[in-house]
Amino acid sequence: MQGVSSTSLERYPAITKEKDIAPAENEQNMSSQVNHVRHVLAVASGKGGVGKSLVSAMAAVELARCGLKVGIMDADITGPSIPRLFGMTARPASSMGGIIPPETETGVKIISMNLFLYDSGQPVIWRGPLLTSAIKQFWTDVAWGDLDVLIVDLPPGTADVPLTTFESLPVDGILMVTTPQELASMIVEKAAGLAKQMHKPILGIVENMAMVTCPHCGEAFELFGPSHAEELADHIGAPVLARLPIDPTVTALADTGHVEDVKMAAFAPVAEALAEYVATPSTVPPAPNPAPAPKVSCSPCSGDSTG
Amino acid sequence: MQGVSSTSLERYPAITKEKDIAPAENEQNMSSQVNHVRHVLAVASGKGGVGKSLVSAMAAVELARCGLKVGIMDADITGPSIPRLFGMTARPASSMGGIIPPETETGVKIISMNLFLYDSGQPVIWRGPLLTSAIKQFWTDVAWGDLDVLIVDLPPGTADVPLTTFESLPVDGILMVTTPQELASMIVEKAAGLAKQMHKPILGIVENMAMVTCPHCGEAFELFGPSHAEELADHIGAPVLARLPIDPTVTALADTGHVEDVKMAAFAPVAEALAEYVATPSTVPPAPNPAPAPKVSCSPCSGDSTG
Repeated sequence: MQGVSSTSLERYPAITKEKDIAPAENEQNMSSQVNHVRHVLAVASGKGGVGKSLVSAMAAVELARCGLKVGIMDADITGPSIPRLFGMTARPASSMGGIIPPETETGVKIISMNLFLYDSGQPVIWRGPLLTSAIKQFWTDVAWGDLDVLIVDLPPGTADVPLTTFESLPVDGILMVTTPQELASMIVEKAAGLAKQMHKPILGIVENMAMVTCPHCGEAFELFGPSHAEELADHIGAPVLARLPIDPTVTALADTGHVEDVKMAAFAPVAEALAEYVATPSTVPPAPNPAPAPKVSCSPCSGDSTG
Repeated sequence: MQGVSSTSLERYPAITKEKDIAPAENEQNMSSQVNHVRHVLAVASGKGGVGKSLVSAMAAVELARCGLKVGIMDADITGPSIPRLFGMTARPASSMGGIIPPETETGVKIISMNLFLYDSGQPVIWRGPLLTSAIKQFWTDVAWGDLDVLIVDLPPGTADVPLTTFESLPVDGILMVTTPQELASMIVEKAAGLAKQMHKPILGIVENMAMVTCPHCGEAFELFGPSHAEELADHIGAPVLARLPIDPTVTALADTGHVEDVKMAAFAPVAEALAEYVATPSTVPPAPNPAPAPKVSCSPCSGDSTG
């Protein structure tokens, strides 16, 4: 079963039809040889719709504000959200060194399946093996260049894409995103189980959609009930880094492609934890010719765009 | 890469390890020969976390209240939500006629991967081919018996599971679930694109999480911004059946396994449309020995559990 038409991808010989994709295991092409990616952070959940993409984007923007070199690989091939959050429509250019990831206003390099489509609503109807190949190519065939951290925004589930990401990329940290619903906790536990089986360290938990403030009376309330984050933290052995509100201002900025203008005070502990993680050398072998760990000296944003 | 341990599945020879699964294309075993399923309704979205499972469960309960025979196939193998919504932990029994789906209090028959696990938090780490086989076996090896409608709760994305469901099951109706976020609309459009490519009719759109009522001042507001449902309806050529609120009462009932106690007035148009759909003979060839279409004469619930 084909997915997107080959015509939309023919400018990118690297991203091609299933039958043309050679086994990419341990393959190193020209672009991967010139890449220096010090850390690979996976943003995972297991459950859909908890805000993985928003957390990935906010994390990238906060780290870029600290002067770090950041990339985002949108690993949700069939439901990509990242370009929309950044208002990005630029199609990636192709060079001898590989596919060149477009940069956002704050300098975050981005690769997403939606950047390869002529119409963002076009479905990518691909089975597992092709999804797997796309993830491997997003790693080996993209000219990421010199990055302090590549953030991988994972799709829901514990199937092909998360599995391939953990198997084929030097992931050295995972951020788990959840919501206060018990159902979400149960499914996030599954994703944490996958991470443990793959021996990947979970840096912490972000509980999204924890509360909302009524625009009429200004009172805050817990829309999805009381938090289960601490119980989840006990189960999976990782700390709760932050509980984030649903904020209509943030939603509006994200929905209109202005995620780089978001400032959310509640996100500061996440940014701090990530800055510390990036400043610590990875224990996982990175790409060839690793560059030294960056010196990070900034206090992540503690402002708030929500007024 | 294996997923759940084989020990947890060995009681169910039908649901087994990847290497043991024979090609199931066009396969009809004993259970599928005694099944009479008149309609197969897929609840889809493309995007995760929009409330597909809640809509599937509420639809099943409403139709069961009308006296119809209803089943739910939880096709989200790696992130199954259905058993939790119904508070169901019964393990399916196995018989010569196939796997026997446990029934909820209102008589809805349910099959979900989580019913086969010893621990609901255990991850199912399966790649596409095994997911595909599971879906086919949920169709052919489960003793669904006589059903007016089987509701298939699809996972997010447009990869293996939705594709296999549309290819291998006689789906004759799709309910699309979305939220007011533009991002959701974009991804729902992808799922609608898949449905169109597979020539499956979209019955309508349910916009979930459309508004919320403040518990302090009682004022309603649009948490995720203004609706995009009508634009989406224009794009995909299907009507908006309902806009559902986020209701903390409903969330609490669903989170504690009491979805059968939910009564939401806003859902009535969806139930009516589905009752009409079930009362109309399917144009897709069903399982062998089809029974006549049922006579439905009920007005779906117009009450409200939210007080």
